[in-house]
Amino acid sequence: MGGRPSSERTRVRREPKRAVHDRDEINAILDEGFVCHLGFLHDGQPFVIPTLYARIGDNVYVHGSAASRMLRTLDGGVDACLTVTLVDGLVLARSIFNHSINYRSVVVLGRAAAVEERDEKLRALEAFSDRLVPGRWADVRQPTAKELKATAILRLPLDEVSAKRRTGPPNDYESDLAVPVWAGVIPLRLQAGEPWPDPRLTRDLDPPVWAPTAPRS
Amino acid sequence: MGGRPSSERTRVRREPKRAVHDRDEINAILDEGFVCHLGFLHDGQPFVIPTLYARIGDNVYVHGSAASRMLRTLDGGVDACLTVTLVDGLVLARSIFNHSINYRSVVVLGRAAAVEERDEKLRALEAFSDRLVPGRWADVRQPTAKELKATAILRLPLDEVSAKRRTGPPNDYESDLAVPVWAGVIPLRLQAGEPWPDPRLTRDLDPPVWAPTAPRS
Repeated sequence: MGGRPSSERTRVRREPKRAVHDRDEINAILDEGFVCHLGFLHDGQPFVIPTLYARIGDNVYVHGSAASRMLRTLDGGVDACLTVTLVDGLVLARSIFNHSINYRSVVVLGRAAAVEERDEKLRALEAFSDRLVPGRWADVRQPTAKELKATAILRLPLDEVSAKRRTGPPNDYESDLAVPVWAGVIPLRLQAGEPWPDPRLTRDLDPPVWAPTAPRS
Repeated sequence: MGGRPSSERTRVRREPKRAVHDRDEINAILDEGFVCHLGFLHDGQPFVIPTLYARIGDNVYVHGSAASRMLRTLDGGVDACLTVTLVDGLVLARSIFNHSINYRSVVVLGRAAAVEERDEKLRALEAFSDRLVPGRWADVRQPTAKELKATAILRLPLDEVSAKRRTGPPNDYESDLAVPVWAGVIPLRLQAGEPWPDPRLTRDLDPPVWAPTAPRS
């Protein structure tokens, strides 16, 4: 894989052979997803909230509305963990024990801080929307000053980051190979169905195409 | 929606109209997913780890291998947050501000405790595998005592639980309806591709069928 763990805290302890430390590969995982799970502490209780995110360079930006509970209580940033998980397939083995999931995941540890500066906020919003549909930002109405103010965005630097992945067929034991059951991988990916036009759409316009990446092992 | 928040901590503060408190609906969301994000504290730092889970009655069971970092350091349970998110679609509005995601998510707060009893462990493993492929448990080799010992499983009671969902078309403002761009929902769901047989498969066996649920708005 190359690369080194970026900190002792992000060293992958469990099944280190699944660790990914190459930054390009970590970026590729981050750039394929669009919903992350953000973990933080509130009144001593861990919370995990799903929210939109996008990477720009060495930062990850998070749409902070869902995390407003956190933002309201903490100024100057908050310790957070941002996790992105892409599910690639079901690994069906001959034994229960060797069943698994093929996946790629990234864990970012750091201090999430609210973005205050207007241009940085706009760039983050552009990244969110262009991740959903490339070019969307240019096609729709831009945010007003009031909307921008009502939109909370968090920035998390990609300093402490690690990733894991599992690929390939099941790791069955030789002694299990005769079990008379199908074994292998059922690849899974998020796919788009037929677009549903808004009932208020007045013109005949073509829907955008949402393209996931190619299937993986 | 019916039902009431199960605690002050799980009351949905942001956009309460998206709150789901009906237990049957919460269970249906939990039963559709199979990967959750488990949040917990370790050395003062929040961690969020993806892992397999399954609901049995009023408990959620989590495959604890990925959370072994947590299990090693804490006896007698640990404060945790288990979040399940199902992404149902991209909500493409005429303004950046009204872009959104259609989703269903469940948040469970509570104390995650290691399952020690053999039968309960087996039931949890059966639930994990039958969620991946119905009937899989009966078709493959059952865990040995040694494998069972090597498998960490956590139990989290469904006491403090809440859910949110967004459905339907974009909430565009009347003043944006003339923006000349397609608006609506691109439905998304996890779908199975062509199964990849294990290279070590020696017989001609049919792969199981993995069926997601029907697409939603």
